[in-house]
Amino acid sequence: MNQDKPIFAVLGAGHGGKAMAADLAVRGFQVRLFNRTYERVDMIKRRGGIELETEQGERLFGPIQTVTSDISEALDGADVIMVVVPATAHRNMATLCTPHLRDGQIVVLNPGRTCGAMEFRQVLREQGCKAKVVVAEAQTFIFASRSMGPVQAKIFRTKNAVPLAALPATDTPKVLTALRLAYPQFIPAKNVLHTSLDNMGAVFHPALTILNSARIEDTGGNFEFYHEGVTPTVARVLEVVDRERVTVAAALGIRTITALEWLQQAYAATGENLYEAIRANPGYSGVKAPRSLAHRYIFEDVPMSLVPIASLGEQFGVSTRAIDALINLASILHRTDYRRRGRTLDKLGLEGLSVSEITQYVEEGTLREGP
Amino acid sequence: MNQDKPIFAVLGAGHGGKAMAADLAVRGFQVRLFNRTYERVDMIKRRGGIELETEQGERLFGPIQTVTSDISEALDGADVIMVVVPATAHRNMATLCTPHLRDGQIVVLNPGRTCGAMEFRQVLREQGCKAKVVVAEAQTFIFASRSMGPVQAKIFRTKNAVPLAALPATDTPKVLTALRLAYPQFIPAKNVLHTSLDNMGAVFHPALTILNSARIEDTGGNFEFYHEGVTPTVARVLEVVDRERVTVAAALGIRTITALEWLQQAYAATGENLYEAIRANPGYSGVKAPRSLAHRYIFEDVPMSLVPIASLGEQFGVSTRAIDALINLASILHRTDYRRRGRTLDKLGLEGLSVSEITQYVEEGTLREGP
Repeated sequence: MNQDKPIFAVLGAGHGGKAMAADLAVRGFQVRLFNRTYERVDMIKRRGGIELETEQGERLFGPIQTVTSDISEALDGADVIMVVVPATAHRNMATLCTPHLRDGQIVVLNPGRTCGAMEFRQVLREQGCKAKVVVAEAQTFIFASRSMGPVQAKIFRTKNAVPLAALPATDTPKVLTALRLAYPQFIPAKNVLHTSLDNMGAVFHPALTILNSARIEDTGGNFEFYHEGVTPTVARVLEVVDRERVTVAAALGIRTITALEWLQQAYAATGENLYEAIRANPGYSGVKAPRSLAHRYIFEDVPMSLVPIASLGEQFGVSTRAIDALINLASILHRTDYRRRGRTLDKLGLEGLSVSEITQYVEEGTLREGP
Repeated sequence: MNQDKPIFAVLGAGHGGKAMAADLAVRGFQVRLFNRTYERVDMIKRRGGIELETEQGERLFGPIQTVTSDISEALDGADVIMVVVPATAHRNMATLCTPHLRDGQIVVLNPGRTCGAMEFRQVLREQGCKAKVVVAEAQTFIFASRSMGPVQAKIFRTKNAVPLAALPATDTPKVLTALRLAYPQFIPAKNVLHTSLDNMGAVFHPALTILNSARIEDTGGNFEFYHEGVTPTVARVLEVVDRERVTVAAALGIRTITALEWLQQAYAATGENLYEAIRANPGYSGVKAPRSLAHRYIFEDVPMSLVPIASLGEQFGVSTRAIDALINLASILHRTDYRRRGRTLDKLGLEGLSVSEITQYVEEGTLREGP
């Protein structure tokens, strides 16, 4: 690795990937931008980069040397591979990468949702990947950003601190070192169970979308998602989902913060209960509901966040009735079996493992083959 | 029994009970009106009856001889006991009645929801009722009616045909004969499995209330419950709930009409799917959503309609995932374990029985004791 300026591959040219590629490029990093569908990046290739509007309102140009839909070209020579795609595409991305990965490369899922790094690693194993790579996951995406046109991206906000863990955790320092120059905002999480289970989207997104489903579809999402879509009674469902998440984590020996604690930490929003804290959060003001039910709050958060939590709960005897109910209703609303498509423990190579075996895996990387 | 004019007891003085008592009284039937809470009927007692506004807009007075919160006074001498209380009160009403029932009396649940007559019979057995009574359930309430004041009731509409079955079905003719003069609208259903499973409220009410829960609580129900609260995607949940109901019925050897068929029969509303048929139904126009989530669409329909359907499904190997999800979410929304409070097969005396044993019970009244 180039110790001073690592070379980045950014996989995915959506709202997140374009912003990250542009942001790295304007700051002088070499970037290879990959997108599976070439049409999506053709204009960037022609233009030679991406126009970025920064948080401060500056308009800068980030020159991008390599723009490609050829994964081998994207990965060749990259030190850090930033995966910036919906979690539903992580499996496919891992399959695409496998033949082209080289010893020492670092893969970071931005973010992993729940058990993203475990799924990525499992695919590498299944595909017989020989390269010694590092796989890590961020707990959330570092930017609030949006694609503003074919070669335009805008960053609204950069988060101050984004927990990140490698799988195994012994690799986390390597990742932070490699990222330090580009993104000092990344801070170490204890291990991927923490980044995976401190997933607040899992608590808020599917429940609120489902309990507002008729209104979303009837009005095209024309209401305040949090300030009108959360009522005292509806907030009870969020609280039970949150309690199930926290209890599953506890069964794995992990202490996660509650959604109430998170609202206080992230937004200084306080209250006796989730309803009060959400209403007290001015950060939610003006946030509209999804425009339709065909939204990642269901098609990403259900299979990639709720399903792995429910699957862990099942293996370790934690009832996840509220989460199960949401998975089932989401499956009906979308006519999709999200449990089958989601991250269940068998797909993560964790089926039948004990808590201490899983802990050993996330900490040290030793994985006993399941039954 | 007085063959010409049976004497009625009406149990319950809510929207339904007051209308029925007044309607019977204005037509010259002797009525004993019972309500557990005396304060609710004190004014009727003082006034000597109920003022009824009929479907045709006439204002009539129905004189009521006996107005009481003493169940023995209400039942004494009554030929037909019309139970007009929420299904959640059927168990308690059966317990209250047991010591005072006499041979030959006829009890009609208006309506039974799902398995109301079975629950009533089971309570009579548990309480050691010795009287040979007839127990029947109507599939729906005969009126659309409303209490308009302490001594006022209004009937908006009288249904043309209301299926009714006794438990056992061999008693159904007795009930129809007794009711013929008062309510020729009652028609025979094959047995109580039909009246119980042809329960359209079970399909529409809980699912629509839950999938509109945030909007109901946020707006106080100020939107069109069917024409805005049912969207193409939300209607899929109704369809799956309906399919589960129909499949549970099929497992019991019963053919029930689908919700789509029912919309066509009851309203001549047609469509390719439930969404289209509901939108095409002018009868739903102007029907507002419940004003709050503390509504019988949840607290009655979940334990007394969805829970028995799910419980039958469980015993006979029919998956009821959508219904289960709704029961679980309702339980969380209301902080009430509706499965525990609801009509499960153990409470109905049906646990462990085969389909042929249940069929024999509903047809002939022979009940093998469960395991």
